[in-house]
Amino acid sequence: MGLIVQKFGGSSVANTERIRNVARIITDTYKAGNDVIVVLSAQGDTTDDLLEKAAEINPRASKREMDMLLATGEQMSISLCAMAIEALGYPVVSLTGWQAGVRTSRTYGDARVSRIEKERLESELGQRKIVLVAGFQGVNRFDDITTLGRGGSDTSAVALAAALHADLCQIYTDVDGVFTADPRKVEGARKLDEITYGEMLELASLGAQVLHNRSVEMAKKYRVNLEVLSSFSGKPGTKVKEVVKTMEKSHISGVAKDKNIARLALVGLNHEPGTAFKIFSLLAKEKINVDIILQSIGRGDTKDISFTVTRSDLPRAKELLELHHKNLGFERIEVSDRCAKVSIVGAGMIGSPGVAAMMFEALFDAGININMISTSEIKVSVLVDETDADRAVQVIHQRFFREFDQK
Amino acid sequence: MGLIVQKFGGSSVANTERIRNVARIITDTYKAGNDVIVVLSAQGDTTDDLLEKAAEINPRASKREMDMLLATGEQMSISLCAMAIEALGYPVVSLTGWQAGVRTSRTYGDARVSRIEKERLESELGQRKIVLVAGFQGVNRFDDITTLGRGGSDTSAVALAAALHADLCQIYTDVDGVFTADPRKVEGARKLDEITYGEMLELASLGAQVLHNRSVEMAKKYRVNLEVLSSFSGKPGTKVKEVVKTMEKSHISGVAKDKNIARLALVGLNHEPGTAFKIFSLLAKEKINVDIILQSIGRGDTKDISFTVTRSDLPRAKELLELHHKNLGFERIEVSDRCAKVSIVGAGMIGSPGVAAMMFEALFDAGININMISTSEIKVSVLVDETDADRAVQVIHQRFFREFDQK
Repeated sequence: MGLIVQKFGGSSVANTERIRNVARIITDTYKAGNDVIVVLSAQGDTTDDLLEKAAEINPRASKREMDMLLATGEQMSISLCAMAIEALGYPVVSLTGWQAGVRTSRTYGDARVSRIEKERLESELGQRKIVLVAGFQGVNRFDDITTLGRGGSDTSAVALAAALHADLCQIYTDVDGVFTADPRKVEGARKLDEITYGEMLELASLGAQVLHNRSVEMAKKYRVNLEVLSSFSGKPGTKVKEVVKTMEKSHISGVAKDKNIARLALVGLNHEPGTAFKIFSLLAKEKINVDIILQSIGRGDTKDISFTVTRSDLPRAKELLELHHKNLGFERIEVSDRCAKVSIVGAGMIGSPGVAAMMFEALFDAGININMISTSEIKVSVLVDETDADRAVQVIHQRFFREFDQK
Repeated sequence: MGLIVQKFGGSSVANTERIRNVARIITDTYKAGNDVIVVLSAQGDTTDDLLEKAAEINPRASKREMDMLLATGEQMSISLCAMAIEALGYPVVSLTGWQAGVRTSRTYGDARVSRIEKERLESELGQRKIVLVAGFQGVNRFDDITTLGRGGSDTSAVALAAALHADLCQIYTDVDGVFTADPRKVEGARKLDEITYGEMLELASLGAQVLHNRSVEMAKKYRVNLEVLSSFSGKPGTKVKEVVKTMEKSHISGVAKDKNIARLALVGLNHEPGTAFKIFSLLAKEKINVDIILQSIGRGDTKDISFTVTRSDLPRAKELLELHHKNLGFERIEVSDRCAKVSIVGAGMIGSPGVAAMMFEALFDAGININMISTSEIKVSVLVDETDADRAVQVIHQRFFREFDQK
């Protein structure tokens, strides 16, 4: 018994039947004696429908008005779900972002939660009501409605859990939890019972779409106990916490793939100090995020620098570099968007130097070429051809998990 | 030049094309040098769609949650229309009910506007922005969203016009203005250039659906100059004001019909003082509105009392009277819901005693039987059989308007 924050995504509330299902999960939690705050996303395709309507009227609509429009989606979800809970005979109240005291930065379309004004929430909980809060939205200092950008509802849930010192923050989704690899694609992928914030962060940023990075970062910062679980299966999910208790059989907790990757190579750069600085400060100024960077050993008086960006940033990055061609002094630019990043993640690999080698060996055995390598304390990423990506995940997963299973 | 409040109904913003049309009307008004506040209803069928969704989940949902749900409709309209105005290159901001400072009574589903907190509105107007306000909604003392019930968006517009001392409040709809009779049904019905608040009130309450009574009452109270006009035709509409300047050719301004009428007759009541009081205080206590009352002259020691109520109140009224059968002491109850009320309205009839007679003569000539009669200073209503109603309107209209035309 305690305070539990639950978040349900758009597919969990897509229609009447699913809303009823969610209402049952919520009231079961309440019946067990807990205080319950629930964060809901917009129903299924609502947000896409609204975006389409807006695009028809004005493809360059202001972000302020887009937020005003999009925020209606979550407001519909909370009121409909409140009605379903009323039908089950439980006390409930739905609150929009501003009513729930979710104050944000001023940026429309991608606002940050700045603080939670808790009075209303605490007063409703004090009356033993189930409190439904519209996710993805808040209100800025001008009393304008803002939305929180991608993964916004997860962020709403974690922010509320942090502010109210919730005992647990459950993120309900359409998968059973966090897996060692994508279970739809990798045979033998299995659900993890627990995972650390750090591992979860690496997995999320590497394309495992279960939880958005922002919410995990916030959970880590405020020590919010997370659980990722399915609103359909009723099975226990994956707990995300600071330290994982269980002895892991493997050094890694997952294999992830990210196809949203493009590679640029500046070939024939002058071999002089400050070149890398110039390139990457130029890109940073234009808010282009650079991921893996590889600098070749200079041959004579030139060198090559390769790096990756997201695919959508590729045209802008290329244009920018060409514009500064003279200043940077390179021979040519080579680009490719036919690559993918495959990574292994695991807090356990810190003390196990053989982990990276095991990954490379698996790829070598399968005849998969590695274009770039990047490592962090709990992650090893390699850049491979897009066509090799799925097979790369499989052979790596098999090496790390199958073999342990067989022991 | 001045401050103009414009209100557009659901059919005026039903789709992208119509929203663009509305955006043009608004920006034309702004271009002419006016400050402009615009109140919008939900798009076309949005409210019905939301009601249907709610009914599927919980047919007895609380009014609080219904208001939370329904308020999204107007929020969508204002943001989409703001985008259309942005596309035309004008400064605009959309505001929900709470952002626009529309404070209401606590009653969900049918709240009254209690006051307008003007700071935000004045600040946006001060920046020369076109201000779009979500109609039909406000916020009560608990900071809960409330809706204003039937005709709510008209009420929002008039309340804003009153609070900000607007020079004009234009109610855009899908008809050209207020007509002497329903133009779809009565040949020769014509648009009035002007009409008094009092006449408009009588017409609205008699079933002419152009403006809701609440908004006209508020306009009368705060002397708001109203204009009813079409968002499609571009023609001048009907002005609603305190005193009408033009010399009317006719003594009356319109003929209206109301089919939402049922008649009850208590036959064989004891002819003693206090019977009428007992009956109508009983009904009043149950909030059943009584319209026309007719008491027959007593024959010996009994009398009959007939009266009308709205059709939806008929079963409750009948049940109530039967319950108090002994106390009231009547012989039997006769009920009929096959009747209609036909009325003529006109401030000009006060000084013209022949007006009522002219109406009765027209009905007599057409062989239409009058069941009950009720008069006020600016109105004469008769109860006729439902099957006679449309013909009654036509012959009365012809008598009052055609004959004047021919002179």
